[in-house]
Amino acid sequence: MNTKRFILPENEIPKAWYNIVPDMPNKPLPLLHPGTQKPMCAEELFPIFSQEASRQELNTTDRWIEIPEEVRDQYRNYRSTPLVRAYGLEKALDTPAHIYFKNESVSPIGSHKLNSALAQAYYCKKEGVTNITTETGAGQWGAALSYAARAFGLELAVYMVRISYEQKPYRRSIMQTFGAQVIASPSMSTKAGRRILTEHPNYQGSLGTAISEAIELALQTPNCKYTLGSVLNHVVLHQTIIGLEAEKQMEMAGEYPNTVIGCFGGGSNFGGISFPFMRHTLREGKRTRYIAAEPASCPKLTRGVFQYDFGNEAGYTPLLPMFTLGHNFTPANIHAGGLRYHGAGSVISQLKKDGYIEAVDIPQLESFEAGTLFARTEGIVPAPESCHAIASVVREALAAKEAGKQQTILFNLSGHGLIDMAAYDQYLAGNLINYQLPDEVIRESVRELAPLV
Amino acid sequence: MNTKRFILPENEIPKAWYNIVPDMPNKPLPLLHPGTQKPMCAEELFPIFSQEASRQELNTTDRWIEIPEEVRDQYRNYRSTPLVRAYGLEKALDTPAHIYFKNESVSPIGSHKLNSALAQAYYCKKEGVTNITTETGAGQWGAALSYAARAFGLELAVYMVRISYEQKPYRRSIMQTFGAQVIASPSMSTKAGRRILTEHPNYQGSLGTAISEAIELALQTPNCKYTLGSVLNHVVLHQTIIGLEAEKQMEMAGEYPNTVIGCFGGGSNFGGISFPFMRHTLREGKRTRYIAAEPASCPKLTRGVFQYDFGNEAGYTPLLPMFTLGHNFTPANIHAGGLRYHGAGSVISQLKKDGYIEAVDIPQLESFEAGTLFARTEGIVPAPESCHAIASVVREALAAKEAGKQQTILFNLSGHGLIDMAAYDQYLAGNLINYQLPDEVIRESVRELAPLV
Repeated sequence: MNTKRFILPENEIPKAWYNIVPDMPNKPLPLLHPGTQKPMCAEELFPIFSQEASRQELNTTDRWIEIPEEVRDQYRNYRSTPLVRAYGLEKALDTPAHIYFKNESVSPIGSHKLNSALAQAYYCKKEGVTNITTETGAGQWGAALSYAARAFGLELAVYMVRISYEQKPYRRSIMQTFGAQVIASPSMSTKAGRRILTEHPNYQGSLGTAISEAIELALQTPNCKYTLGSVLNHVVLHQTIIGLEAEKQMEMAGEYPNTVIGCFGGGSNFGGISFPFMRHTLREGKRTRYIAAEPASCPKLTRGVFQYDFGNEAGYTPLLPMFTLGHNFTPANIHAGGLRYHGAGSVISQLKKDGYIEAVDIPQLESFEAGTLFARTEGIVPAPESCHAIASVVREALAAKEAGKQQTILFNLSGHGLIDMAAYDQYLAGNLINYQLPDEVIRESVRELAPLV
Repeated sequence: MNTKRFILPENEIPKAWYNIVPDMPNKPLPLLHPGTQKPMCAEELFPIFSQEASRQELNTTDRWIEIPEEVRDQYRNYRSTPLVRAYGLEKALDTPAHIYFKNESVSPIGSHKLNSALAQAYYCKKEGVTNITTETGAGQWGAALSYAARAFGLELAVYMVRISYEQKPYRRSIMQTFGAQVIASPSMSTKAGRRILTEHPNYQGSLGTAISEAIELALQTPNCKYTLGSVLNHVVLHQTIIGLEAEKQMEMAGEYPNTVIGCFGGGSNFGGISFPFMRHTLREGKRTRYIAAEPASCPKLTRGVFQYDFGNEAGYTPLLPMFTLGHNFTPANIHAGGLRYHGAGSVISQLKKDGYIEAVDIPQLESFEAGTLFARTEGIVPAPESCHAIASVVREALAAKEAGKQQTILFNLSGHGLIDMAAYDQYLAGNLINYQLPDEVIRESVRELAPLV
């Protein structure tokens, strides 16, 4: 029998994260202060983030950042995650392609989010912070941070997008079981929330609003910092543990991927799996394709503009150079809540602009069709977000079949869907639709963005 | 850093299951034909179960039963499961005890049930069966069998206890995502179901009724067999993969357990973790304690009688020698649905009678208190069933502290609770209660049981 699952011994788990910036031919454009429009230094981020996260965010020189021993100790509760050869899916697609996936769904909260949550919580703790805040959409990030806050003894307040708060009570319960405070956003607990509720009493919330509320609470609470689950460079940095492990595991399998695929929300899962492989492209010219699979209803990489934009709708964040649909863009209410974000991180945006990253947009029905096929052939019900990556894999595997070409495809299974079964329910009942996003909507949404400096 | 997780390489995964019966000083009493009251032979079980499962059920001579290569190939999708040292829980309890758990929650359906589902589905497939039926309470077994049926290309009909069908729509969706037919029980599709619905139109269902319906459908459908998720000897046999792996992994950790603990529904999870260790007790006199943790509201081992009884309430099954509360016993509606079964398997019942197994009954609130502590210290939200094992572990660890004695405790984390968050919700909100079970109820329920032959 051929080996299916490749697992690293504990002493082989990477001891440093990979920072891709030193290897980039064009560095990402600087973050700008929203008031002065001047490039920001790490110190200016300290009021919001932990100092170490702030320094990592702007670190353009150190290729390897040591993973603190306390974080590695936590990683060992679930890492290494398995690299799996998807024989069942290959057979169903009758493809010559070899398909591998990195199974981040085995983490105790069911997704890759924990990799950065633990690091961010640790740095806060180490710097004497007692309280942290964050936002969560589908709840994956909130659940991860609840776990991490508990692990390092921090108090946590989570602003959860109202529609998810109501539709996904179980994710809320997970956070509460770990001891976090969970508040539906928009809420009356912040100025940003009150303003929106006053204007739109029935507003269902968005990640942008929840971010605004979480930052505002952090700024107004003593000894409190804000944390973010994606988009920013330090978050992607922490997620490179995925690709670094996968690289060693692919070596165990005796293969190297031609194509690396991840679903795309803010970029942390995609960057996490792909950057460690991309370093060989940047440094040694290795030819590998990197495909970011985003939802057709929130297509920042395929149809957005590359501009300076805010990370949230109230404009509390630095101005970020990003492929964006505009910070006021309201994505359709698709089930892949983790992908409903208007922009891409600055490093990924630059790499996309420079041609290193391809992007595809996946209609909702195609994503669930692929996810259901994966469940039935590989036995794991994927998170709706991960279904987008799988749909892209299916396209590539069928193209390989068409071309009669052996290809080695690696993708990141960012999470399982066991807490998202309502979405599958609706898909199986034929109640889901594809959302059309007219060009005019995007044009209107990006009309007033600040030009790139 | 000390090693936390012990994982076997693929070539170390056991190639045979352990059959404890040859090592038992007193063999289990025979199954009796419900009509003739005569001991049954394997051939008489063929109409219900696959032939190989029937033979395994009555096998008293072969200590090791080879795991078919096709089943091992499926096991490799998630096995070996990790053995984990619970440092966080130890610290929280301030105990000198070393606590280890076998993490069966990492299986793709989130519990240990897959270990037997794959074996049973494989034997059916190999014998030319095309359709299988089963029942499910909380949905763990149904989800596992849906996965297994899909893996081996079988059609599956699952009778799901009505109250779970309504309260746990997500487990139903998981089964449907894997392609199974799911029917709320009691249903109008069987005589057993119709009779109950006619008498009690609002009956919420029970495992016993669902079993009756599943067996009836299997008997009336061409080329169809019935499968069961616990209680029977062949099911426990398949689950010994858990303890056999754990034995090797404890060796990697350089320890041997003083105490082995599992929660107790029908016995498959408890037997699975404990029998491989118990063989050293039976064969070499090794002193180890084996504790079955059952819910206080369904206490067959601690308060039931040892009698011949039916496995289901309609009386379709052979008469089984079991510790039982009576096949008409209706357990309180606790959240650990997988433990709401009236009887224990015949092998476990005999071993209990002979003094090899201790049993404790755990009140519902104590189980969730222990489960929440485990979630906050080990980061995994345990299934409500597994919470009972954890409560027993907590008792033992505190006793070790009291006595100032180092103890090594091993328990089976049979599943995660991510699909059972409604239960935690109610626990955290203070809405759960402990059920009192008066002696008269048990006396009345076991009054008409057949005496042991």
